[in-house]
Amino acid sequence: MTTIRVLVTGGTFDKEYDELTGRLFFRDTHLPEMLRLGRCRLDVTLETVMMIDSLDLDGAGRAAIVESARASRETAIVVTHGTDTMVQTATALASAALAGKTIVLTGAMVPYAFGSSDGLFNLGSALSFVQVLPPGVYVAMNGQHFSWDAVRKNTQTGTFEAV
Amino acid sequence: MTTIRVLVTGGTFDKEYDELTGRLFFRDTHLPEMLRLGRCRLDVTLETVMMIDSLDLDGAGRAAIVESARASRETAIVVTHGTDTMVQTATALASAALAGKTIVLTGAMVPYAFGSSDGLFNLGSALSFVQVLPPGVYVAMNGQHFSWDAVRKNTQTGTFEAV
Amino acid sequence: MTTIRVLVTGGTFDKEYDELTGRLFFRDTHLPEMLRLGRCRLDVTLETVMMIDSLDLDGAGRAAIVESARASRETAIVVTHGTDTMVQTATALASAALAGKTIVLTGAMVPYAFGSSDGLFNLGSALSFVQVLPPGVYVAMNGQHFSWDAVRKNTQTGTFEAV
Amino acid sequence: MTTIRVLVTGGTFDKEYDELTGRLFFRDTHLPEMLRLGRCRLDVTLETVMMIDSLDLDGAGRAAIVESARASRETAIVVTHGTDTMVQTATALASAALAGKTIVLTGAMVPYAFGSSDGLFNLGSALSFVQVLPPGVYVAMNGQHFSWDAVRKNTQTGTFEAV
Repeated sequence: MTTIRVLVTGGTFDKEYDELTGRLFFRDTHLPEMLRLGRCRLDVTLETVMMIDSLDLDGAGRAAIVESARASRETAIVVTHGTDTMVQTATALASAALAGKTIVLTGAMVPYAFGSSDGLFNLGSALSFVQVLPPGVYVAMNGQHFSWDAVRKNTQTGTFEAV
Repeated sequence: MTTIRVLVTGGTFDKEYDELTGRLFFRDTHLPEMLRLGRCRLDVTLETVMMIDSLDLDGAGRAAIVESARASRETAIVVTHGTDTMVQTATALASAALAGKTIVLTGAMVPYAFGSSDGLFNLGSALSFVQVLPPGVYVAMNGQHFSWDAVRKNTQTGTFEAV
Repeated sequence: MTTIRVLVTGGTFDKEYDELTGRLFFRDTHLPEMLRLGRCRLDVTLETVMMIDSLDLDGAGRAAIVESARASRETAIVVTHGTDTMVQTATALASAALAGKTIVLTGAMVPYAFGSSDGLFNLGSALSFVQVLPPGVYVAMNGQHFSWDAVRKNTQTGTFEAV
Repeated sequence: MTTIRVLVTGGTFDKEYDELTGRLFFRDTHLPEMLRLGRCRLDVTLETVMMIDSLDLDGAGRAAIVESARASRETAIVVTHGTDTMVQTATALASAALAGKTIVLTGAMVPYAFGSSDGLFNLGSALSFVQVLPPGVYVAMNGQHFSWDAVRKNTQTGTFEAV
């Protein structure tokens, strides 16, 4: 069985509602709960690299994600990430030329903690693509997969599309 | 983009709770709602072949599923199916030798209508595998994919495993 | 603040889905989780009298519920109960002439573990009625409250109505 | 059966997640869906007075709520309201001296659209209290009811308490 590393970086995926302030914030990742809900039996290692909104991600943050991907002994890597700058991080990962590694970035348009989230669907999708796609860097959203250099987020529709 | 046909056959996936009788039953499939929740942008055609518990599926029923798969113009086919006899239907589909078609069966251990269902995760997984796996018949459950002739449901754990 | 005793007897309220057998069953009550979800700050003591389908409740079972109500030091008592024989148990409680006690029976048409349950609404309702109604035995369902001798379950609509 | 008017004013109760901007916003009230979920059979008339965050509520807004309460032919009135200034609106309603009317304000700490909301519990509670409490203005939160002049929101704990 493929062993998979999941690099958690935050994003809408993992946002929660703070009932005292009425704002969204990050606490722990929901990945363990989501894997349990999906009855996932893959050999998955979780690594929380950071917990931030991807709009707040700078060069140093992106370098940390690249470094974690480089250090990963697993060659199948899923990165959970905010959708706003997902393509930029995919580009950074591709530029790092991590030979032999299949890296799939995914995220969610709605926090998992909300009933109406696409997160569980996207997680199932990303974990599947990462097992079968050839080495390279991909974005998996909306049931589709895109090469890092052939995708953009359409901010009008909130979906990813080929370019 | 791959065009995909989803053959709906019922199974736990689509069971609902009848509040008058306290029993589980079938009404319409939840697939449209699940695809919407997953913000799925794939070109998916839904076809409800039947809505039954897979324990009630007989030879004629299985033949109907095979026939729908054969008639499908799409070469990427997902079959939603009860888990109890999923492997038997996979075997029937493989025996039909549907050359050039990638067929992925999936299901759920808990009805989608319940909060704790694995259905959305499995659907994301099956729709992803079907786009990239070579022609053949597969079972996609628990985040994994298995060839039809190398899998069984472990009824003790409720998970699928390689044989 | 009123102190309240909640007598848990099972019923649809607390049914869960057994993913190995595909049947509904009882495990632990969901009351603690529900009270937490409702941010309930009442002084509530939970007592699980039994965990059964109210169709399986016999005279001895009903006597046990009456006994728990009699033994309760709290004069405000909520009983969670299956809807099918809720009125019978209400009658048994009324016959026991528990002077000075306000007893409110409630339940659910759909298990709490399902996303679409009326359980949380009914629990909020029953806990409110029990604080303000005069001593007596009542059924609280569908947002309404009924005296034990002026209510029946309409099995066609699944709702309670005055008689 | 008591006829009840529900005055909808917005508040956390009715906030939704805008997946394009990542912000919370108001669209339509969730009250109809919540009443359906609760299998509510009360004679309820919904009136949306406004849809705003109660922190944005000013004197004119409060006057509009008072006016709707005054105009209500129903003497049992529930007001759904943000928790931050709920007590202020309760005070305004009490000052208006609406003789013969029982007015119960309620809200939620978490939006109903989130799985973990207390909204359904609070709605069941408020609709029950309003049927049995004598004329006056009350706050119903956390399973409790408070007279308008004997309650405050504890902003540290996010709960309401007697003063």
